[in-house]
Amino acid sequence: MNSLEHLIKIFSSLPGIGRKSASRIAYYILKKDKSFAESLSTTILEMKESIINCSICGNYTENDPCDICRDPKRDPSVLCVVEQPQDVQIIESTGEFRGRYHVLGGAIAPIDGVGPGNLTFDALVRRVEKDSVRELILATNPTVEGDTTALYAVKLFKDKGIACTRLASGIPVGGDLEYADTLTLARSLKGRIPYTF
Amino acid sequence: MNSLEHLIKIFSSLPGIGRKSASRIAYYILKKDKSFAESLSTTILEMKESIINCSICGNYTENDPCDICRDPKRDPSVLCVVEQPQDVQIIESTGEFRGRYHVLGGAIAPIDGVGPGNLTFDALVRRVEKDSVRELILATNPTVEGDTTALYAVKLFKDKGIACTRLASGIPVGGDLEYADTLTLARSLKGRIPYTF
Repeated sequence: MNSLEHLIKIFSSLPGIGRKSASRIAYYILKKDKSFAESLSTTILEMKESIINCSICGNYTENDPCDICRDPKRDPSVLCVVEQPQDVQIIESTGEFRGRYHVLGGAIAPIDGVGPGNLTFDALVRRVEKDSVRELILATNPTVEGDTTALYAVKLFKDKGIACTRLASGIPVGGDLEYADTLTLARSLKGRIPYTF
Repeated sequence: MNSLEHLIKIFSSLPGIGRKSASRIAYYILKKDKSFAESLSTTILEMKESIINCSICGNYTENDPCDICRDPKRDPSVLCVVEQPQDVQIIESTGEFRGRYHVLGGAIAPIDGVGPGNLTFDALVRRVEKDSVRELILATNPTVEGDTTALYAVKLFKDKGIACTRLASGIPVGGDLEYADTLTLARSLKGRIPYTF
């Protein structure tokens, strides 16, 4: 296998990249000048060197603790609990959340051998006590694994007087009732919001 | 901009990769162990170092001349003329062609400033004479630029007694008449094939 085929094989293993896209990308890099390949190659290594997990929340960061954990304007008593570091960026991009985060590092999935012990629940329990957390927003994915993980957290904290909330499920903004699946529609009906005047 | 954002920006510039896919790939690399990042990074540089253009046909290769140009079993008197090196791999994957290739390096596109002088027509003329080529298969893309380029080649060689052919256009195998565009359907009708018994 030559290096071109090798690179195509590695690219095909990346998420969302099939064999054809991988090949297109490799040929694109071949056609660009050498500085492009060097910049791509160096940046991959640099990122892997410099990005670490924040020791408080588990988010990806170049400085430990991360910017959010160090920001005194962020409310430490409201924690948004997410599965993956990338979920932090997605929620941050809404600009709607002024509390802090806790990254679990995944979701409970017995079939893949992931139990609560493999996630950062111990650290979460310590943070909740130390920072007098009053609300946990359980922003796990709306999947079987995500919902199980959220329920596990709720059971851990329900007797400690901590409000546990989850993200609203419903029809996407700009969506169409006709294309919504029945489960989403059922949840959106159950969680209907009264108009306030 | 930190190295994660920098990598996402580079990935977004690759063909077929949008901002969301780029971000997903970067986070995937972050999550994998260090050896994966190292292997990806090294292979990119290795490929860029080791892959060169064949001095005869222009195909990408690690050894010059390339395997196809060095293969005595390949008929040197039939040349398949393509736009890009990756087109060679695509035609090779059919296993139907036993001649050799000539890579033009693009297509004539006056709007992008690409004229015949920017392509490898001079080398093609020399090869046709040297190897006593009897047929040129013009396998440029069925686009305005590709068709123009093919016609240019036909004009170059038509008075020299060299057969010039082009790939058949028509309905894709497994396709549906209903979804074929009228131009493709018209070409497929014009190029209809008689049944032979």
